[in-house]
Amino acid sequence: MKLFTSVHDVPNIKQFVNDALALKASPYANQDLGKNKTLGLVFMNPSLRTRLSTQKAALNLGMNVMVMNMDKEGWALETQDGVVMNGSTVEHIREAAAVMGEYCDILGLRSFPKLNNRDEDYNEDFFTKFVQYCGVPVVSLESATRHPLQSFADLITIHETWNPLRVGANAKPKVVLAWAPHVKALPQAVPNSFAEWMCKAQQENMLDFTIAQPEGYELSEDFTTGAKIEYDLETALNGADYIYVKNWSSYKEYGKVLTYPDGWMMNNEKLGLTNDAKVMHCLPVRRDLELSSEILDGPNSLVIQEAGNRLWAAQAVLKTMLEELK
Amino acid sequence: MKLFTSVHDVPNIKQFVNDALALKASPYANQDLGKNKTLGLVFMNPSLRTRLSTQKAALNLGMNVMVMNMDKEGWALETQDGVVMNGSTVEHIREAAAVMGEYCDILGLRSFPKLNNRDEDYNEDFFTKFVQYCGVPVVSLESATRHPLQSFADLITIHETWNPLRVGANAKPKVVLAWAPHVKALPQAVPNSFAEWMCKAQQENMLDFTIAQPEGYELSEDFTTGAKIEYDLETALNGADYIYVKNWSSYKEYGKVLTYPDGWMMNNEKLGLTNDAKVMHCLPVRRDLELSSEILDGPNSLVIQEAGNRLWAAQAVLKTMLEELK
Amino acid sequence: MKLFTSVHDVPNIKQFVNDALALKASPYANQDLGKNKTLGLVFMNPSLRTRLSTQKAALNLGMNVMVMNMDKEGWALETQDGVVMNGSTVEHIREAAAVMGEYCDILGLRSFPKLNNRDEDYNEDFFTKFVQYCGVPVVSLESATRHPLQSFADLITIHETWNPLRVGANAKPKVVLAWAPHVKALPQAVPNSFAEWMCKAQQENMLDFTIAQPEGYELSEDFTTGAKIEYDLETALNGADYIYVKNWSSYKEYGKVLTYPDGWMMNNEKLGLTNDAKVMHCLPVRRDLELSSEILDGPNSLVIQEAGNRLWAAQAVLKTMLEELK
Repeated sequence: MKLFTSVHDVPNIKQFVNDALALKASPYANQDLGKNKTLGLVFMNPSLRTRLSTQKAALNLGMNVMVMNMDKEGWALETQDGVVMNGSTVEHIREAAAVMGEYCDILGLRSFPKLNNRDEDYNEDFFTKFVQYCGVPVVSLESATRHPLQSFADLITIHETWNPLRVGANAKPKVVLAWAPHVKALPQAVPNSFAEWMCKAQQENMLDFTIAQPEGYELSEDFTTGAKIEYDLETALNGADYIYVKNWSSYKEYGKVLTYPDGWMMNNEKLGLTNDAKVMHCLPVRRDLELSSEILDGPNSLVIQEAGNRLWAAQAVLKTMLEELK
Repeated sequence: MKLFTSVHDVPNIKQFVNDALALKASPYANQDLGKNKTLGLVFMNPSLRTRLSTQKAALNLGMNVMVMNMDKEGWALETQDGVVMNGSTVEHIREAAAVMGEYCDILGLRSFPKLNNRDEDYNEDFFTKFVQYCGVPVVSLESATRHPLQSFADLITIHETWNPLRVGANAKPKVVLAWAPHVKALPQAVPNSFAEWMCKAQQENMLDFTIAQPEGYELSEDFTTGAKIEYDLETALNGADYIYVKNWSSYKEYGKVLTYPDGWMMNNEKLGLTNDAKVMHCLPVRRDLELSSEILDGPNSLVIQEAGNRLWAAQAVLKTMLEELK
Repeated sequence: MKLFTSVHDVPNIKQFVNDALALKASPYANQDLGKNKTLGLVFMNPSLRTRLSTQKAALNLGMNVMVMNMDKEGWALETQDGVVMNGSTVEHIREAAAVMGEYCDILGLRSFPKLNNRDEDYNEDFFTKFVQYCGVPVVSLESATRHPLQSFADLITIHETWNPLRVGANAKPKVVLAWAPHVKALPQAVPNSFAEWMCKAQQENMLDFTIAQPEGYELSEDFTTGAKIEYDLETALNGADYIYVKNWSSYKEYGKVLTYPDGWMMNNEKLGLTNDAKVMHCLPVRRDLELSSEILDGPNSLVIQEAGNRLWAAQAVLKTMLEELK
């Protein structure tokens, strides 16, 4: 694995989930693998969970870690070719990425969308160029359109908590991605990526996947092929085993917060419609706006376990990359 | 030890001082203890000495360290329950603390008072909730009302420099906490904590403790019980063996800088009233405002040695916590 | 080596280049040397290459690294003695440096010039005081007037790429430092330092050195003694084997961006005047303002290799310092 930017980089997701759970059971068994290897974590945007979990994953594998918070250092990068650099950008991504590749064996990169221009965000220009010029394996720490470490952790969490005895030995869980309100315009990266991983898991017969959102909030079909789409939240929740609550801004009216009907915040009343569903969220979560405190503080919430599994997702990715480095 | 937030968390302060001095003599003897353990340092406010000394202490013990400068990342945390989070706070402390606890074996937390509302600051709401929700042992890196790693280092410094032969084999040193001027309104955390540790040491018959401050600058009695209180600096300094110079804002007129009589800056003339006292300060110090350059650059200053001892204080705390992990 | 601030701190530059190349061939051979030693990197100004390469160099040697971004933490330091500190500076460099020396075995310091007052910048007041008060060996990560780790990496790069068979077994390469345009007023630290190292290498018969700049951009003669000075770029480039492209502001009219004749951007047309010269730049580079994209993306550019060699330069310096610690 030279690149981890989406589910398409993973040959076998079932095996990958099992790899991660093996690392969770035995975190420090592979420290020779990372000896004298350096992971560079490059953040163009803020990070809490992703930075800490990926840093810890690398340390567990015996690696060194260097963090570059480019957003805080005001080191504006030029991405366009053929530009006379007489303005505010101080370095071209061609040099910046190549130089980081000189000092690091693996790089992680976070680069959010600007939410102004859909084509610009969805062609992943910055991310793609960084990968092209740095010359070393790259892990996505969330790009403009995907957050694969989060989605992998989500799948791990579903896998380790699913108890088929509840509903019959061969039953697959029903997983619902449910749009929720927010005050800010958020990227589609987390829901795109979650949808992509769940559609793949559905193909592998691991679960059934439904997306529920108000009109106007449909995600790009590039990420949702195979998913059941619902516009009525209550219909979608009926019989659900997992609810993944998440806000996102409109893809169609790109980056906009549209009006929407009432009743999209997840709460205990809606939970009553489900098969005693477990509730997930990538965090940070706006309490009592996206998701009620009663759920977050109750027995159905998986959000902390899910955040904890970010560590094992990252460690499985880094381990696979290290195994292919010489 | 699951918590280090005040002198009350320490079963035996004499033993703890000796533990720290044993680590100073042999810093790297316990590296197996910290192997594969991670210390997370969470700063809601800036730090120089505390961050470096605690980081170095953890490295000496073989731990990994991850630093989170929450103040610089603009990751505003909500602390109140029952709030609809549709404003500027992006994450609730319940989730933020719990997530950090997932990735770290021990957490350090710095959280200053706001100096607006005394009750809010003195009930240590933020600190207490962080401890409650993170689920792992917590070291205070300075809270709204206390700075116990500093005070522990102060006691270590007094212990290692006190030479009873100067004044008789059984004599105890006279320690004076002396208020000094400053241009900004500073918290009471350092003097509260120093007073608390010195009062405890006085109970243990290790020293005699006096606090000198102008009218209006009295500290909360919760921290000063047993101390001799003086309003005349020269009287207080008479026969002193250690002078701890420090500014703080008013506790009574909470957070205010009050007018005060002249003559509270410590200088050589006042030093002449003492028993050739050693002079301490937690740093950073405002030269020639709180404390004269002639003292800081002269033989009576202990400020650098005292800062150096921050390392051994932190290492003793972390070592004790590590011994109780599993 | 207790200090690395200029070429004058290096007893034998040929040997030092060979030391660095030996480390490049065998990066992890000296990890016992750095065990339980801590490098503190203190940045008063931003850094990308320098921080990462020096951090990685220390890790290769088995050291621990602690980074202090003082510029981002707003910890304004007082450098003048005899000042009543009742203004905006929160700590005196006497205490700040001494405290960092308590926690670190070696310190690295970056401190840029302000470009307001030439005497103030060129007497290196901040840097000199930091060295004086910290009490441990210090590596310059770029001071007001020099960037010796960069220049050392530059010499390493010339040495490892020079193929004397091209022009005769005893021929020395012709190295040209060529001024180039920029939109901002930049320090003279990189060109000063490069000139100083090249003049020393010329003395050692390793190369011939020429500086080309427009009228008014002459560097201080303290750094350029022995160099051939040209005001016509094309004359300077004639027969060049290495071109070091770099902007700097005026030393004479201190810190100013002066008008200059056209034609100082390096491009393929000018490269045609040379002996198929290799092109160097310390980075970050403003593309198509200082140096053309066609050169940077072509076979004559050494800029990435040069940045990579920053690692071995730093590692050679740290190794030498570690060998003399205890």
